[in-house]
Amino acid sequence: MINTILQHRSIRKFKTTDIPEHILEKILEAASRASTTGNMQVYSIIVTKDQALKEALWTAHFSQDMVKTAPVILTFCADFNRFNKWCYYRKAEPGYDNFLSFYTASIDAILAAQNAALAAEDFGLGICYLGTTTYMAGKIIEILKLPSGVVPVTTIVAGYPDEDPPLTDRLPLNGIVHHEVYHDYSHEEIDTIYLEKESLEETARLIEINKTENLAQIFTDKRYTKKDNVHFSRHFLEMIDKQGFMNNE
Amino acid sequence: MINTILQHRSIRKFKTTDIPEHILEKILEAASRASTTGNMQVYSIIVTKDQALKEALWTAHFSQDMVKTAPVILTFCADFNRFNKWCYYRKAEPGYDNFLSFYTASIDAILAAQNAALAAEDFGLGICYLGTTTYMAGKIIEILKLPSGVVPVTTIVAGYPDEDPPLTDRLPLNGIVHHEVYHDYSHEEIDTIYLEKESLEETARLIEINKTENLAQIFTDKRYTKKDNVHFSRHFLEMIDKQGFMNNE
Repeated sequence: MINTILQHRSIRKFKTTDIPEHILEKILEAASRASTTGNMQVYSIIVTKDQALKEALWTAHFSQDMVKTAPVILTFCADFNRFNKWCYYRKAEPGYDNFLSFYTASIDAILAAQNAALAAEDFGLGICYLGTTTYMAGKIIEILKLPSGVVPVTTIVAGYPDEDPPLTDRLPLNGIVHHEVYHDYSHEEIDTIYLEKESLEETARLIEINKTENLAQIFTDKRYTKKDNVHFSRHFLEMIDKQGFMNNE
Repeated sequence: MINTILQHRSIRKFKTTDIPEHILEKILEAASRASTTGNMQVYSIIVTKDQALKEALWTAHFSQDMVKTAPVILTFCADFNRFNKWCYYRKAEPGYDNFLSFYTASIDAILAAQNAALAAEDFGLGICYLGTTTYMAGKIIEILKLPSGVVPVTTIVAGYPDEDPPLTDRLPLNGIVHHEVYHDYSHEEIDTIYLEKESLEETARLIEINKTENLAQIFTDKRYTKKDNVHFSRHFLEMIDKQGFMNNE
């Protein structure tokens, strides 16, 4: 297993081959074995294969090709709807319409997603996470008919790989690990931690294409801008509220 | 690997044996290979072994014994501090002091945590997640000296198991999986989905101890009450704000 973890690459090109039903079933079972707060399993997984629905999701996810071409789209949702219904039918009064419950359910959903991702990779499939899930939560709620108490948290596209990309770079371990307590970074330490990333040929290429002075400016000025982040922050907070998770009084 | 995933049980009793350094290193490397938004790695992992610090964390985590007795405590944090510092030193203007950035960093931290958990289990270690991390975020920020831009998201205690508990029950797969779009639950479907859980001997025992009518009421009236959820929602939202992630204008 450790090898499956260490060899993870995001896959964005897929063969047209379907995922056999018994393998998909095992992937979903793997998801269901993840740790979950109080064993409440406050998440749901939407398995989408229908081409028309995949095209609707493709539009929502910024028209990234892989959403249309992957055989299966798995949308992982924070879900207190099922648990709340169970409570109501048992004359128990649920108090889960608040932010903490949303965040707890999000953690449940993400742990389940990573189990599914690793199980899929262990079966020779490739996966890619879609960060656009939170940006476009409103549209996804509409497409997948998510009721109150349900918010999409993350999405995985899965299928047999039709590409074999190299491992992507990572910061050195001492750049992300702290011993005993947090040790804040000096200017020199930041330089050391980011040295390898900034020295990659790929980085030089990206700086040329994007016409920026350095890699950091590609992130702040092109990929993840303040304007977009503020816009999507408001949108996502509105969706959390609309789906019934902001009653914090 | 699929077997490691399917055999997961939370471990709360540990031998005093330390985790060898080379194994801990592999577990941290496994964490660092998880998918991460835009390859930004906006998370940090705090590795705590010092007994005095573990005891401080033990107090924060509702005095759960395993926090004091596990050889290693891993606290996974949403972390834009390092990335922001990198941006500043490169004359790039970061726009990551908002809710979306916090949520994105949370997803990064949780994916890394689950990789670490599974790698640890693959090496024969046992782990348990601590949901108390969000409830007690303020206290943990203090103990682990987390600066602005850093929020604790989840915690894993890890060590060699000194117990061998059975697998815990899970809802049937069709209770958590939806095909194509979300299908909301009828009263009858809720009864079916929760039948096995409600029929367990352990459930009967818990109802007797808690003096409730049924299992759902144990959750709503004892374990996860509205009063506590509202309290911890406010506290956690305050911490997110205090750590600099609520500038959504």
